[in-house]
Amino acid sequence: MVKPPAKKPEHAPITGFPVRDGALTLGGIKIGQLAARVGSTPFYAYDRALISARIAALRQYLPARLKLHYAIKANPMPAVVQHLSRIVDGLDLASAGEMAVALDSGMDPARISFAGPGKTTAELSQAIAAGVVINMESGAEMENIARIAEKQGIQARVAIRVNPDFELKSSGMKMGGGPQQFGVDAEQVPEMLRRLGKSGLDFIGFHIFSGSQNLSEQSLLDTQEKTLDLALSLAESAPTPPKKVNIGGGFGIPYFPGDRPLDLKILGAGLAKILKKFDQRLPETEVILELGRYMVGEAGIYVTRIIDKKISRGQIYLVTDGGMHHHLALSGNFGQLIRKNYPLAIANRMDSPDREQVNIVGCLCTPLDRLGDKMMVPVAEIGDLVVVFQSGAYGLTSSPTAFLGHPAPGEVLV
Amino acid sequence: MVKPPAKKPEHAPITGFPVRDGALTLGGIKIGQLAARVGSTPFYAYDRALISARIAALRQYLPARLKLHYAIKANPMPAVVQHLSRIVDGLDLASAGEMAVALDSGMDPARISFAGPGKTTAELSQAIAAGVVINMESGAEMENIARIAEKQGIQARVAIRVNPDFELKSSGMKMGGGPQQFGVDAEQVPEMLRRLGKSGLDFIGFHIFSGSQNLSEQSLLDTQEKTLDLALSLAESAPTPPKKVNIGGGFGIPYFPGDRPLDLKILGAGLAKILKKFDQRLPETEVILELGRYMVGEAGIYVTRIIDKKISRGQIYLVTDGGMHHHLALSGNFGQLIRKNYPLAIANRMDSPDREQVNIVGCLCTPLDRLGDKMMVPVAEIGDLVVVFQSGAYGLTSSPTAFLGHPAPGEVLV
Repeated sequence: MVKPPAKKPEHAPITGFPVRDGALTLGGIKIGQLAARVGSTPFYAYDRALISARIAALRQYLPARLKLHYAIKANPMPAVVQHLSRIVDGLDLASAGEMAVALDSGMDPARISFAGPGKTTAELSQAIAAGVVINMESGAEMENIARIAEKQGIQARVAIRVNPDFELKSSGMKMGGGPQQFGVDAEQVPEMLRRLGKSGLDFIGFHIFSGSQNLSEQSLLDTQEKTLDLALSLAESAPTPPKKVNIGGGFGIPYFPGDRPLDLKILGAGLAKILKKFDQRLPETEVILELGRYMVGEAGIYVTRIIDKKISRGQIYLVTDGGMHHHLALSGNFGQLIRKNYPLAIANRMDSPDREQVNIVGCLCTPLDRLGDKMMVPVAEIGDLVVVFQSGAYGLTSSPTAFLGHPAPGEVLV
Repeated sequence: MVKPPAKKPEHAPITGFPVRDGALTLGGIKIGQLAARVGSTPFYAYDRALISARIAALRQYLPARLKLHYAIKANPMPAVVQHLSRIVDGLDLASAGEMAVALDSGMDPARISFAGPGKTTAELSQAIAAGVVINMESGAEMENIARIAEKQGIQARVAIRVNPDFELKSSGMKMGGGPQQFGVDAEQVPEMLRRLGKSGLDFIGFHIFSGSQNLSEQSLLDTQEKTLDLALSLAESAPTPPKKVNIGGGFGIPYFPGDRPLDLKILGAGLAKILKKFDQRLPETEVILELGRYMVGEAGIYVTRIIDKKISRGQIYLVTDGGMHHHLALSGNFGQLIRKNYPLAIANRMDSPDREQVNIVGCLCTPLDRLGDKMMVPVAEIGDLVVVFQSGAYGLTSSPTAFLGHPAPGEVLV
């Protein structure tokens, strides 16, 4: 018997950007027209209809009992946050800078939470004055909050961020389990709750977040089950029943060849099952799913123009006006051990049958500045537009925009 | 015979910042006073006397015939560029943004060169109008320059950036040899020179740059010898003798345990020997050594304050107000395959005898945000200052400052 040749892993299909007359469209606008509207390349563009569709899909498949929060750090563009603030149940922050954007959106401060190690006294003061929920990362932070709140004469809303005693398996990034800079070790939480009860602070609940960018439904469900069990167990030591439990999120999106998208039906059915036990014990407690990347990542593209096409020792290089200064993760330098290609397209030649293997690079004077290595794409020319997909999250603000002094890219929500 | 235990590699000694009364000093100012002067942490501080001393050492040990250029991309802070512009022989740019800083310094445009793939027509127009030397990366770029120069009625100054047929061994980053996005393959240069001769452009010379962050004197000398040989060979096809040959730099600095600083005496003696053959053939040609990191990297520190100290499952975490958003390379996410610790200090407890093993982290809500893993440092408390050395190059502008919406750090030249 002859073994069939192993199929090379491919990118998951990109479906959100229909092609018209050979051109990719975003929000119904052809890519060339969109570039003209923005006025210059490179730029990021996000599709509000795709964001809304993603939220609608989450509402359709996940238990209605789950509240959906948007983690602003994934994409803090004010227009994006504004759009999401009308269709999600809350917002989650990592800094006072993000808090300003969240409050400007009109979201109720009680539905906003602020997490992150090393919050300064200035940041805590702002958060207390704003009335947002502070996810406390340590006992020292709790004492600082109590002191500031007393001075301000405001009862601060606080939750405890818990470092669980398990981790999210198959995760792109682990943020819980073992020793961590994040949160309070689960075994130290009962003692902290006792002190919290005497502190005069308004106890809201728990924040238990184990990791991110996970594409395994089973790992996610296993973790959420353990997370809810942990919340139930910790609730027994709480001064009052928790009003909210933020169980994190961790839903990933397919970036690289071989990745496949999560099945929301499986996740929804699994979460419904897992929530039963929790509901028997704490039916009044809000359970919050906090998602960032999953809500916006697939709704965004990064658009660059080809400035030069050159052949060096048999290899074709498409040199664009973009690069790692705008999209660090694309270059493989944002936590990745090995660089892999994002899905991308020559967006004004979508129907072109002639293809060739190329290296797509940016305009920076560093060999780190790679957009695509040895990719088969339609034969492209100077002036064509290269579009990088899966770029709606951890794109612009995760990138060293000042590196080498090039202009900042545009950013639009369409 | 008993084999002695292998000595654990250590950081190279840091000598530029004397300790006074247990406090690190920079420019003679104690670290606490410096922090007060800046007004807030975190911040970058650079020592102008250390920068001047480094240039003086280069002049002392390297052949007087070598011109020294500063590559602005290493640290484009205007005050730093201004300071260097008075003590080096020229400046090298990677963008129109850097060109603005260079021209503002008062440096003669003929002593400024502009390299980088994917230069836009707008950038080329600015460079031609300014009169800086453009290091051309391709034939298409040459045609574009000739067109713009004719339109402006200015004779553009151009050099050819050459992708050599060899590479810089033991280099932190390779930028020459094999197929590359940078420069014109050496074997294509004679044909390009023929076209250049008929183009009306002012031929200045060659730019041959193979790599960076190299700590082996022998590798650097081997490469510079090949570079000068290549320049001699290419000069035979040139319309006029080259006025300048930029041989790159590539001098590294010791970042990690086990790294040792370059010996300038060895490099100087080796370069003098290598230059002899070149001088017989092209005595009138300026030979330029282009250095960035080596001129400023060791003169700078990154200063953060400890906001929280916590113990998680037996490990101590010092949580600072800084992080990877200010210093991406420190977190191991700027081209490094494996994260290694930079040298750092608890800068207000330099004489403290009590030491403990700690993890030093930033304030970002991501496990990528690591400043120091399992390092032995003096026992530190909330409010203490953590100083990261070797931070004068590829620090602030190479970092995603907008990530998570924290404020930008301060930056001072003392």
